Amino acid sequence: MDSAQAAPEKGANSPAPGYGHIRAEQVGAVLHITLNRPEARNAMSLQMVAELQQALQAAEATAGSEGAVRVVVLRGAGGHFCAGADLKDMAGARMRSMQREAGAPDPIAEVNAAFGRLCVAYAQTPLAVVAVLEGTVMGGGFGLACVADVALAEDSASFRLPETSLGVVPAQIAPFLVERLGYSQAKRLAVTGGRLDAAAAHRLGLVHELCSADDLPQTLNRVLSDIVACAPGALAATKSLMQQARFSPAADLVEQAAAVFAHSAQSAEGLEGMTAFLQKRKPTWAVT
Amino acid sequence: MDSAQAAPEKGANSPAPGYGHIRAEQVGAVLHITLNRPEARNAMSLQMVAELQQALQAAEATAGSEGAVRVVVLRGAGGHFCAGADLKDMAGARMRSMQREAGAPDPIAEVNAAFGRLCVAYAQTPLAVVAVLEGTVMGGGFGLACVADVALAEDSASFRLPETSLGVVPAQIAPFLVERLGYSQAKRLAVTGGRLDAAAAHRLGLVHELCSADDLPQTLNRVLSDIVACAPGALAATKSLMQQARFSPAADLVEQAAAVFAHSAQSAEGLEGMTAFLQKRKPTWAVT
Amino acid sequence: MDSAQAAPEKGANSPAPGYGHIRAEQVGAVLHITLNRPEARNAMSLQMVAELQQALQAAEATAGSEGAVRVVVLRGAGGHFCAGADLKDMAGARMRSMQREAGAPDPIAEVNAAFGRLCVAYAQTPLAVVAVLEGTVMGGGFGLACVADVALAEDSASFRLPETSLGVVPAQIAPFLVERLGYSQAKRLAVTGGRLDAAAAHRLGLVHELCSADDLPQTLNRVLSDIVACAPGALAATKSLMQQARFSPAADLVEQAAAVFAHSAQSAEGLEGMTAFLQKRKPTWAVT
Repeated sequence: MDSAQAAPEKGANSPAPGYGHIRAEQVGAVLHITLNRPEARNAMSLQMVAELQQALQAAEATAGSEGAVRVVVLRGAGGHFCAGADLKDMAGARMRSMQREAGAPDPIAEVNAAFGRLCVAYAQTPLAVVAVLEGTVMGGGFGLACVADVALAEDSASFRLPETSLGVVPAQIAPFLVERLGYSQAKRLAVTGGRLDAAAAHRLGLVHELCSADDLPQTLNRVLSDIVACAPGALAATKSLMQQARFSPAADLVEQAAAVFAHSAQSAEGLEGMTAFLQKRKPTWAVT
Repeated sequence: MDSAQAAPEKGANSPAPGYGHIRAEQVGAVLHITLNRPEARNAMSLQMVAELQQALQAAEATAGSEGAVRVVVLRGAGGHFCAGADLKDMAGARMRSMQREAGAPDPIAEVNAAFGRLCVAYAQTPLAVVAVLEGTVMGGGFGLACVADVALAEDSASFRLPETSLGVVPAQIAPFLVERLGYSQAKRLAVTGGRLDAAAAHRLGLVHELCSADDLPQTLNRVLSDIVACAPGALAATKSLMQQARFSPAADLVEQAAAVFAHSAQSAEGLEGMTAFLQKRKPTWAVT
Repeated sequence: MDSAQAAPEKGANSPAPGYGHIRAEQVGAVLHITLNRPEARNAMSLQMVAELQQALQAAEATAGSEGAVRVVVLRGAGGHFCAGADLKDMAGARMRSMQREAGAPDPIAEVNAAFGRLCVAYAQTPLAVVAVLEGTVMGGGFGLACVADVALAEDSASFRLPETSLGVVPAQIAPFLVERLGYSQAKRLAVTGGRLDAAAAHRLGLVHELCSADDLPQTLNRVLSDIVACAPGALAATKSLMQQARFSPAADLVEQAAAVFAHSAQSAEGLEGMTAFLQKRKPTWAVT
């Protein structure tokens, strides 16, 4: 893997598709998605939610093809990750909610559920997801940070859950806070307003790695190298088993895990992995 | 919020009710409950269990009224939090157990279940719960510390699970240890007798914040300020969602979370929160 | 307890049984099991899996008898813990898998499931399990380390999950990684290839205690002393309750926990514990 993977500006394989609130550029096996509303600290608009879904689905659809996307990197333009929900969209939904006919679905709930489905899609994707956290990481942005498989943060990033201080519930985020931080720390943050600096976020495991702004490109490159050294099918199968293991005792998963292992050992990946090991060379998926 | 919230001695809104083994004093939105058997390091008597239940129910019943309790602070009198179960009560239960008729319920189990129901009540309350841990935190006291949403400790506090060394099971406590510390650390403590100093308790996340005896009032005040800045209804709804998220995949909670969010956005709290935000003032619930 | 417990070479109560790929020596209440293929960094052969199962079952069968095993210590011979699955056995299973008749069970899955059942057996045993981690801790060895109740590591130990880089899935291990590290850190390791030094393993809670090679015997002795001070029946009942508490809300366990407590209080252990406490002496189980 060369260092270009962390620098989408140069040598991108594919031109940016026609998104408005995000940018998406593929470099090798890595799709760099940038939340791109710097004037609003990348507040999560309805359009951004839709585009993030689209970009993920398009990336997942490349699976198995040459030049397939294997890793998604999420970051924000202009030095901030994401300041949370877009207040204008929220005001619009409030307006439509008040004007709707009796019995009609509530537009506020629909807008909120769309964000929840976005988080679920990124949480369940077979691709690896890396978040690069800088500046403001708030509300929905905080939630998205918790969804990523790997969260890197610049050491001046700051985290906040402002919802309850505004009288509303961090509802779609709550399950991902529990998933990421464990129930006890998630609950503690929720009760105390969830204000954290980067060091505290690192101590709690919200952030997996912390570095200076200068070291960020290099840290990201190392993480991406580690990820692409893993066979994509095996990585996806491992993520899927772990998702089940959150809610099932290990004893109940033995037979299924054995079937998954046997399948992987006899797959093209498993054979290539074994052959490369015996031939003391890198497997094909690790050569990028 | 003024500093009086952490100092129940001065300016209490309500006089202490007629409790014997606890004290309960409300200051603003905060109910300060003190385990009050200093001569026994606040060992958890049957009467104390009953009074803690009563005090919580009374506090919950104030919801929505002016001067409602929003936070419960639990601490011990005389420099210790709680030394665990009361041995006299336990001896009495043993006696009644031996003398009971065949088929009658076992008084030992009943006494134990009463403590378990107490822990569950504090774990499930919509109010915020803060524990202030000093001196001895043992057995049932250790369990209660794990139940609180926020646990502050003086840096000389010491923690112990003496049950298995006495031939008995920390049975009601076990689930709350798992909830607080995660399964792996909870099991490790159970197997090795659960002796921890305050620094180790902090590293494991049993304690969320550690400070000197001198800084305790100020630390508690800051935590209480953070809590009262959160809208009480939104805080309660968040706690409730997180409780569900411990045992449900996020994907299964999207619709429910959306309904909870929409409800909060259209509630009096949500409207006040939005209005205060636009008017650049504190919302009413944060002015105490 | 004297220091001989951590030094199986001297004063073993029982001679080593006829194992080939492990050694098993009982000293007092402690069974020291050594993975004993130092020429292969103790790679987990089929025979080793079978012998580890046998040794555990034999140890569990001593329960209640004089000289019963109460703690199992797992370590590797020759300075390494375990390098993962044995590649020769795996190649053999691949061969048999290719040659098998249509519809016959897959030998690869069977070999893998046998390892999974081994992990489950050690995870569910009523005995306390301590792992002593030195040198290489890889693949299946990493999994076994996550299964132990207490994991001690020498500070030069190194940890690795090589599976996905070989195109296969750490399938039986995945649930135990989630159990030990929590979902978020387990997933992060799986996605990035799981390479950790001892200090990082300690920070994540994979390892509970870290020490120099020189201090290892002393650290192990202290942990074993802490464990034998706990009544074996009470310890087993606590482990069992915690296993349930991983997947059940505390509120659902109150009645069962009360029954477990009442049973323990009236058991021989509970009576001896109470008597010893009143007589200010050690209970019988703590005198070794």
